[in-house]
Amino acid sequence: MANITTRPVTKLGIVGAGSVGTALAYASLIREAAREIVIYDIDATRAEAEALDLSHGTQFTGANTVAGGGRIEALAGSDVIVVTAGARQKPGQSRLDLAAANVRIMETLMPALMEQAPEAVYILVTNPCDVLTVAAQKITGLPPNRIFSSGTVLDTSRLRLLVARQAHVLMTSVHATIIGEHGDSEFPVWSSATIGPVPIREWTISGRQVFTDEVLASITDDVVNAAYKVIEGKGATNYAIGLAGVRIVEAVFQAENAVLPVSALLRGVHGISGVALSLPSIVGSGGVYKMLEMPLDEREQQQLQDSAETLKQNLASLGI
Amino acid sequence: MANITTRPVTKLGIVGAGSVGTALAYASLIREAAREIVIYDIDATRAEAEALDLSHGTQFTGANTVAGGGRIEALAGSDVIVVTAGARQKPGQSRLDLAAANVRIMETLMPALMEQAPEAVYILVTNPCDVLTVAAQKITGLPPNRIFSSGTVLDTSRLRLLVARQAHVLMTSVHATIIGEHGDSEFPVWSSATIGPVPIREWTISGRQVFTDEVLASITDDVVNAAYKVIEGKGATNYAIGLAGVRIVEAVFQAENAVLPVSALLRGVHGISGVALSLPSIVGSGGVYKMLEMPLDEREQQQLQDSAETLKQNLASLGI
Amino acid sequence: MANITTRPVTKLGIVGAGSVGTALAYASLIREAAREIVIYDIDATRAEAEALDLSHGTQFTGANTVAGGGRIEALAGSDVIVVTAGARQKPGQSRLDLAAANVRIMETLMPALMEQAPEAVYILVTNPCDVLTVAAQKITGLPPNRIFSSGTVLDTSRLRLLVARQAHVLMTSVHATIIGEHGDSEFPVWSSATIGPVPIREWTISGRQVFTDEVLASITDDVVNAAYKVIEGKGATNYAIGLAGVRIVEAVFQAENAVLPVSALLRGVHGISGVALSLPSIVGSGGVYKMLEMPLDEREQQQLQDSAETLKQNLASLGI
Amino acid sequence: MANITTRPVTKLGIVGAGSVGTALAYASLIREAAREIVIYDIDATRAEAEALDLSHGTQFTGANTVAGGGRIEALAGSDVIVVTAGARQKPGQSRLDLAAANVRIMETLMPALMEQAPEAVYILVTNPCDVLTVAAQKITGLPPNRIFSSGTVLDTSRLRLLVARQAHVLMTSVHATIIGEHGDSEFPVWSSATIGPVPIREWTISGRQVFTDEVLASITDDVVNAAYKVIEGKGATNYAIGLAGVRIVEAVFQAENAVLPVSALLRGVHGISGVALSLPSIVGSGGVYKMLEMPLDEREQQQLQDSAETLKQNLASLGI
Repeated sequence: MANITTRPVTKLGIVGAGSVGTALAYASLIREAAREIVIYDIDATRAEAEALDLSHGTQFTGANTVAGGGRIEALAGSDVIVVTAGARQKPGQSRLDLAAANVRIMETLMPALMEQAPEAVYILVTNPCDVLTVAAQKITGLPPNRIFSSGTVLDTSRLRLLVARQAHVLMTSVHATIIGEHGDSEFPVWSSATIGPVPIREWTISGRQVFTDEVLASITDDVVNAAYKVIEGKGATNYAIGLAGVRIVEAVFQAENAVLPVSALLRGVHGISGVALSLPSIVGSGGVYKMLEMPLDEREQQQLQDSAETLKQNLASLGI
Repeated sequence: MANITTRPVTKLGIVGAGSVGTALAYASLIREAAREIVIYDIDATRAEAEALDLSHGTQFTGANTVAGGGRIEALAGSDVIVVTAGARQKPGQSRLDLAAANVRIMETLMPALMEQAPEAVYILVTNPCDVLTVAAQKITGLPPNRIFSSGTVLDTSRLRLLVARQAHVLMTSVHATIIGEHGDSEFPVWSSATIGPVPIREWTISGRQVFTDEVLASITDDVVNAAYKVIEGKGATNYAIGLAGVRIVEAVFQAENAVLPVSALLRGVHGISGVALSLPSIVGSGGVYKMLEMPLDEREQQQLQDSAETLKQNLASLGI
Repeated sequence: MANITTRPVTKLGIVGAGSVGTALAYASLIREAAREIVIYDIDATRAEAEALDLSHGTQFTGANTVAGGGRIEALAGSDVIVVTAGARQKPGQSRLDLAAANVRIMETLMPALMEQAPEAVYILVTNPCDVLTVAAQKITGLPPNRIFSSGTVLDTSRLRLLVARQAHVLMTSVHATIIGEHGDSEFPVWSSATIGPVPIREWTISGRQVFTDEVLASITDDVVNAAYKVIEGKGATNYAIGLAGVRIVEAVFQAENAVLPVSALLRGVHGISGVALSLPSIVGSGGVYKMLEMPLDEREQQQLQDSAETLKQNLASLGI
Repeated sequence: MANITTRPVTKLGIVGAGSVGTALAYASLIREAAREIVIYDIDATRAEAEALDLSHGTQFTGANTVAGGGRIEALAGSDVIVVTAGARQKPGQSRLDLAAANVRIMETLMPALMEQAPEAVYILVTNPCDVLTVAAQKITGLPPNRIFSSGTVLDTSRLRLLVARQAHVLMTSVHATIIGEHGDSEFPVWSSATIGPVPIREWTISGRQVFTDEVLASITDDVVNAAYKVIEGKGATNYAIGLAGVRIVEAVFQAENAVLPVSALLRGVHGISGVALSLPSIVGSGGVYKMLEMPLDEREQQQLQDSAETLKQNLASLGI
């Protein structure tokens, strides 16, 4: 029975064979997020070895395949490309200190990727992701919906973990979001946070309020500093960001229109334009369909404007 | 290598081999919700045939097993028992008309089940589930957390589907709940409903409000009448309630503490006692850990009291 | 953010809203086998009601959607179409008695489907599936790889269940296959059957051979008569065939190249041509890539020829 | 609703927070292999940081939890413990060179683990795993079924990948196994290897034999050297072994009785006693239920005896 035409299948490109890119590939394999995964890295030996290791596990993960190497042409035809390449945040280093170096990487990387996959949805995981999103959008000229970053999806997961633990409920029953810069100026929107349908400040255990101002402040601190803690202990973060990245990839591949706090170029949402920062956004087959304007109390509005201002200054100082 | 001791595995008992019980078994197999599934029905032939059919599909569903028959002893040692047995709602029949017959079934069934599985968590799917929950709790003397019903978990799923379609978002990004009686007096809590973090009445598409009062009223109608529509067209509902049931079973087996709108005996929540109705509740390994008091506007408070009153009258007229 | 282009997603068409078609849809939803499911039935009311019921459960099953009705145009653009429509096997009725009526249905159905989905892979579940595969291939003129039936995928699952139970191993560790007609002349290939890597006749428990000739004969009988037993007890089979069907659908959508005993038109395999019967076959994105010639002992060769002969006579008597 | 008793849930202990232990934890989380995961490492800071990173991803992975640290007491009550701790294989180093150091680690580690989890099933992933299995069994006095190693589960996955690629079929349709030492003397059992039901040497593409002696020899070489290649390129292997480990864990937790080529102490299988090496074995709730005697041709029998001899000498030279 000859002449079998191959139906197009989902193809995920991952740029960077470091601990983040490979964790993301591993999670993608296990969750069967894409039929075909290709890892590209300028360190071809590393990319090949990582793909080899990953492929050895595919007996246990469905029909998916994974390949890796140093030829960017292998990314051709990718439906989604996740960029994890770049210099990595070091202990003590702020996310913004990484910016200049990684912007320069984007300047050569993005045009090369666009040659291979002009129709792909691009998801940036490299930090500082908000600044790089703006840079990469300008470099590529892509419509803003098709180039965005993982933003505060991970930070929000951290937030929900801490709330869920104290509330003694399942994480997905916690509805609370971190918005703003994926960095030090980010903040949780406590004013509308709920556990199930219960406003977080009204949550009680044995009749006592659990989430007092002190507890909320402490959770906020923990979330903002979570990455630093992990980096101190193991040199980098990789596993959680891998899962957060795959979650976004799935929303695109499955045309989900899921609401996720990704970071894309704002054009007037909450009165902000010209920067990328995270807001709950509808993510589907074409990327970011819409960034949502959510209720904020006065303090949160100020925090959001401050976060946008921080990002604007960063962009300006980088000449973007 | 002799003398291998078998580690205890999860065992799910299903009472009733009708279209609901078997759909629930099918969904449990596919989702691998329990390692061992036993279907019991007084119609032994039917239960055996259904289990045989289900078991023929287990090559495709992991290590799970399914058995079925007319011996109640096969339920011994079940960790969770889902009761789907009872007379079925007919076209045109209100849920409450079923009550008397099904209460009588409970009076013989529940003590027999308790003999086999005194430590199980009991989940009632038979209608009218709120009334039967109270009856079954009295009959068994079980602590109210361990005997409850699927309540408005299904109705809430219907609600979210309708909202999600009009909002063009993923269903799990819709946060809205049906509470009260699983029946005609149930209602959605619109006052705190959100899509992602956006209050439902503020959701716009192309600048226009989507969920006007008329749209919300129409959705409410559709949800309350959804079961009737399905029953008219196919004679019964079974697939969705099967999935709703499994979702609750998973919350118990995985010790999730998920917030789900199940129906258990109220003891003072929202000032209501002595009836069972659905409120968002924490469901975990021991059953219903806590029923939550959620914000309601004045109208919703009245609706909840009315629903409770309806249920009280039903209980009274049934002598429960 | 306007102008979001929608990336193509997987679309599964199901013809027939009976107990098989809807079980297949239910399993597809739960396993997330396809992004979009459409059920078509000439009984529009039934198809709508079933799709409504199924859709009410989608809160628990990912981003998938399901629709149903009586307009065949809704199947347009399906990547895979599973045909479950047709008269159903009744207690006591042989699979072949159904043939004439169902061939006539194919004569009007298949051209109508081809108009809507000329590029689809077609999987027939309607019985007698081998005869209908030949008829439908002739009617459509499709290349034989793109129109085939579920064949003995289900029978093989039944076989593995019975062997696994007696061997006390996981079903997927049993390697044994039913080949030939999906009907009374089918047979297991015991000569190469293994449990793990152990030939089935060498399998021992406590030093005693488990699978004696009598045991093997009894298992064969049980498999061949399994459908009759289920039909006697519940009037029809649906759940297992639903899962078997979805398994094949997944092999196509995921471009798996899985080896599955489906039934397609033979053109010289084992020296047989002009009939469709089940042999282990490679199933991938284009349908049946190749039907495999497997080792058979003398008796099995004869059984296969006899099964082919039976099918040839059936085709001849039907004028196909 | 007070006094909710917690039903026991599955608890997986992982010893070692290195790249293998954490990959295994990550895969366990994503596959929901255990409800509760605890990572223990003498480097408490590392274990805490890894568990923190992993836990930040749990919003996307069901109800599972993960913790980590330097207190061995946290492993108390584990149902399964996977040991990944030990010195790691370095580029150019044979697996057996690691033995002495890792045996010494077992001498202090295993008694300490036994104090915490005397009823657990123990799975060793540390290399050289065959030698360590014998050592650990002697140290603990556990019945051999309850202490075994991942053996050639990973090597077999590598083998199937290479065969599947050349045969153009799904990996799980390849039935071939690596047996013997998890190390240089391991070998594939080609004599009974099949693709689907077709003997591997009879597999053809376009009429030509694919798996000639040269191709089989080359695949064997590739498998035996696969770990070295990965280690050269990335310094270690971790992702595939993580998945292989989880697969075994699942077989225990789900009471699967799956046939997997794990390594446990042989007591007469194939006439071999006193060493641990990999043979296809039934793995279920109590660990290794039975090691299977499989058909081997003369050369393979010799290879197995040679592999056993190699391992015996290793044990002798280590004084075990």
